[in-house]
Amino acid sequence: MVKQSSPSESRLAAENARIEALAHEALARCDALARCSEAPDRLIRTFCSPAMREAHRLVGEWMQAAGMATRVDAAGNLLGMYYPPGCDPRRRVLIGSHLDTVIDAGRYDGALGVLLGIAAVAAMRDLGLSLPWAIETIGFSEEEGVRFGAPFIGSRALAGTADAELLSRTDANGVSVTQALRDFGLQPAEIGQCRLEPGSVVAFIEPHIEQGPVLDEAGEALAIVSAIAGQTRLTVTWTGGGGHAGTAPMAGRRDALPAAARWTAVVEETGRATPGLVATVGRVEVDPNATNCIPRVVRTSLDVRHAGDQVRRRAVDALVARAEEFARSSHLKLSIEYVHEHAAMPMDIALTNRLAAAVESAAGPPRRLVSGAGHDAGVIAAAAPTAMMFIRSPGGVSHDPREAALLDDVAAALNALVRCVESLGGLERQSLP
Amino acid sequence: MVKQSSPSESRLAAENARIEALAHEALARCDALARCSEAPDRLIRTFCSPAMREAHRLVGEWMQAAGMATRVDAAGNLLGMYYPPGCDPRRRVLIGSHLDTVIDAGRYDGALGVLLGIAAVAAMRDLGLSLPWAIETIGFSEEEGVRFGAPFIGSRALAGTADAELLSRTDANGVSVTQALRDFGLQPAEIGQCRLEPGSVVAFIEPHIEQGPVLDEAGEALAIVSAIAGQTRLTVTWTGGGGHAGTAPMAGRRDALPAAARWTAVVEETGRATPGLVATVGRVEVDPNATNCIPRVVRTSLDVRHAGDQVRRRAVDALVARAEEFARSSHLKLSIEYVHEHAAMPMDIALTNRLAAAVESAAGPPRRLVSGAGHDAGVIAAAAPTAMMFIRSPGGVSHDPREAALLDDVAAALNALVRCVESLGGLERQSLP
Repeated sequence: MVKQSSPSESRLAAENARIEALAHEALARCDALARCSEAPDRLIRTFCSPAMREAHRLVGEWMQAAGMATRVDAAGNLLGMYYPPGCDPRRRVLIGSHLDTVIDAGRYDGALGVLLGIAAVAAMRDLGLSLPWAIETIGFSEEEGVRFGAPFIGSRALAGTADAELLSRTDANGVSVTQALRDFGLQPAEIGQCRLEPGSVVAFIEPHIEQGPVLDEAGEALAIVSAIAGQTRLTVTWTGGGGHAGTAPMAGRRDALPAAARWTAVVEETGRATPGLVATVGRVEVDPNATNCIPRVVRTSLDVRHAGDQVRRRAVDALVARAEEFARSSHLKLSIEYVHEHAAMPMDIALTNRLAAAVESAAGPPRRLVSGAGHDAGVIAAAAPTAMMFIRSPGGVSHDPREAALLDDVAAALNALVRCVESLGGLERQSLP
Repeated sequence: MVKQSSPSESRLAAENARIEALAHEALARCDALARCSEAPDRLIRTFCSPAMREAHRLVGEWMQAAGMATRVDAAGNLLGMYYPPGCDPRRRVLIGSHLDTVIDAGRYDGALGVLLGIAAVAAMRDLGLSLPWAIETIGFSEEEGVRFGAPFIGSRALAGTADAELLSRTDANGVSVTQALRDFGLQPAEIGQCRLEPGSVVAFIEPHIEQGPVLDEAGEALAIVSAIAGQTRLTVTWTGGGGHAGTAPMAGRRDALPAAARWTAVVEETGRATPGLVATVGRVEVDPNATNCIPRVVRTSLDVRHAGDQVRRRAVDALVARAEEFARSSHLKLSIEYVHEHAAMPMDIALTNRLAAAVESAAGPPRRLVSGAGHDAGVIAAAAPTAMMFIRSPGGVSHDPREAALLDDVAAALNALVRCVESLGGLERQSLP
């Protein structure tokens, strides 16, 4: 490890004041960025929309003000490059998150991670840090999957997995990803050039709000993400026989709903009984869905996530078997459609330990969480050493305009981010100018 | 009891041939009537629609051909009056059912009862029956409740219960019942005059397809309805807390769905465990209803029916108590809305026994069923002695274009109807001319 000079107390106080001012600015910028929206009364910012162009203009100005040269790549990612004095310009640390949002979104999901990256560059420049590589901040173009029903368009381009299937997907108006990029003024043919050259990215660090209640309930500011959970999504369709709710005696019915209901209860019990597992029936569709009609067809979704792929697969298999039992005993036809499945993605252990140490010195020892939600970090992890930091979500609120972030938490996150990059560079802290 | 002459075998054969021909004609008329529709490709005939006017023209011609004088009353009911030789014109037996349909209806629900009334008049005229009162056949204007969300507009006018609330109801275009009647060329102000004068209707008999599977499964043609079941309809709303299906650990969730699901299973168990009860959850609405969102609010319907009002009320009370238990143990808020409730309506015992005897001589001893579905008979029963006969529904199909009726069943129903009226008149059978 590299020896580190201990700055004087006054230097520390000045540094902390600067970090707090930058954290304050990052939060104010989240407010300003939330006004880049497709709707006047709520936040919607989808891939390649006019609101994304406005966001690029605004965030690009902030990147430039922090000393970065900006560009938009062929996948619509906004990037800002900062070259510390004496760095090797062929290698870089990447920091950021995504700029797109869900419909009626909060202002911190994604955006806060981008603005923390910019604030970190500003802090490092202010501190006069010399680093062995460049720092690049990134606002991924598409993470939520709203417009094309497929998430991670931006990060998949960097990971080299934005394939033809993804690019040919169409939105509700029949516009393809390729066409959307072209309409935005980009060259989708060059998307292959977005791919990170092996070894060029020393580390990717994604700060992100937790989107869950764990930190808030524990009274903690920051956590370290150990892995992105693996996930299985199914649609289970139960087909029975309809009929009149008044005239069909109970004995001869083939009501599709009670069996689906019993299974829904078992899904919850399975989730509660298996440590670390989440299992959810979030969607129910009943046909014909009328008070006086016996349900003929019921469609239920299943969403199962866990850090361990084996645990997840065992739970899914057991739930499918239970569905088959319930369907059989109710004389229903069952069909199971696997909608989506991805394996768990662990974060880079060495980088994660370094980020954890930085968080510990900024905010005390952090807990390690498995992220149940997907993140760009899970995609980039396949192409570069990746770590992720969670920032407390007051109330555990997510994908909702009531999303919040606390100034002290954001300052701690910024502090940890700077310390992590500094430690990663193996550098001595420079004094303030 | 009145002495009855025994017609010769040849007369019987001739009568039976005539009955069968009339049954055949009634079925053919169901086909023709099904072409009076608001849509080219499926049967929709709602209250005061152009299709209802066409139906009136067609059915009115058939009534006149059977020797009836026709009129449309202020509630849009089509009536045809037949005066047998020497009858008291101030009293009458009423036979019929409704002419309106659900959306994408079958051709027998309602219509067959109207056409059987007309066929019965034709048969009685052919047989030269003299009866002590007139026979009036009726095609009720509105039973299904499609246009105004309130059923029984036609029969409520006859029962004197078509009140101001009913008449001021509006359809999807904001047109009131009153206005719809006026647009149809009627005088809604005179609707009070539709009310049956006490004692003027000796009997109302409604033939109707079963709309359920009981007769079909038993291999029987006809049944007698002992009562229209009482009914309670509730909406049960379960309110918990939403959240991300990936990021919210199971332990802290307030998912509204599993409790609603457990209760849905109990509703079915309660129905199966209580003789004669039907209990159905037919409608489920989940908010936000997305695969990756924990259900925040779930709305479930409950439909409970039984011939005994006490049994029904006890079942509803028990199910409400169970809902409260499930909600409490899942930390959900529960709200119960009573949407609709009506008491069971027994049919007239003496008239029902007479109809049962007529059915027995036409088709063997009939079973007595409680009608789980509502019928005009349940409304008229409050104003005049009422009985109801069910005709087998092949496959138990109802409110569906696959609805069917069998010629032999319809002939047996017509035979029973004529015998019942004849027996009610206490008359000796006359020979064929």
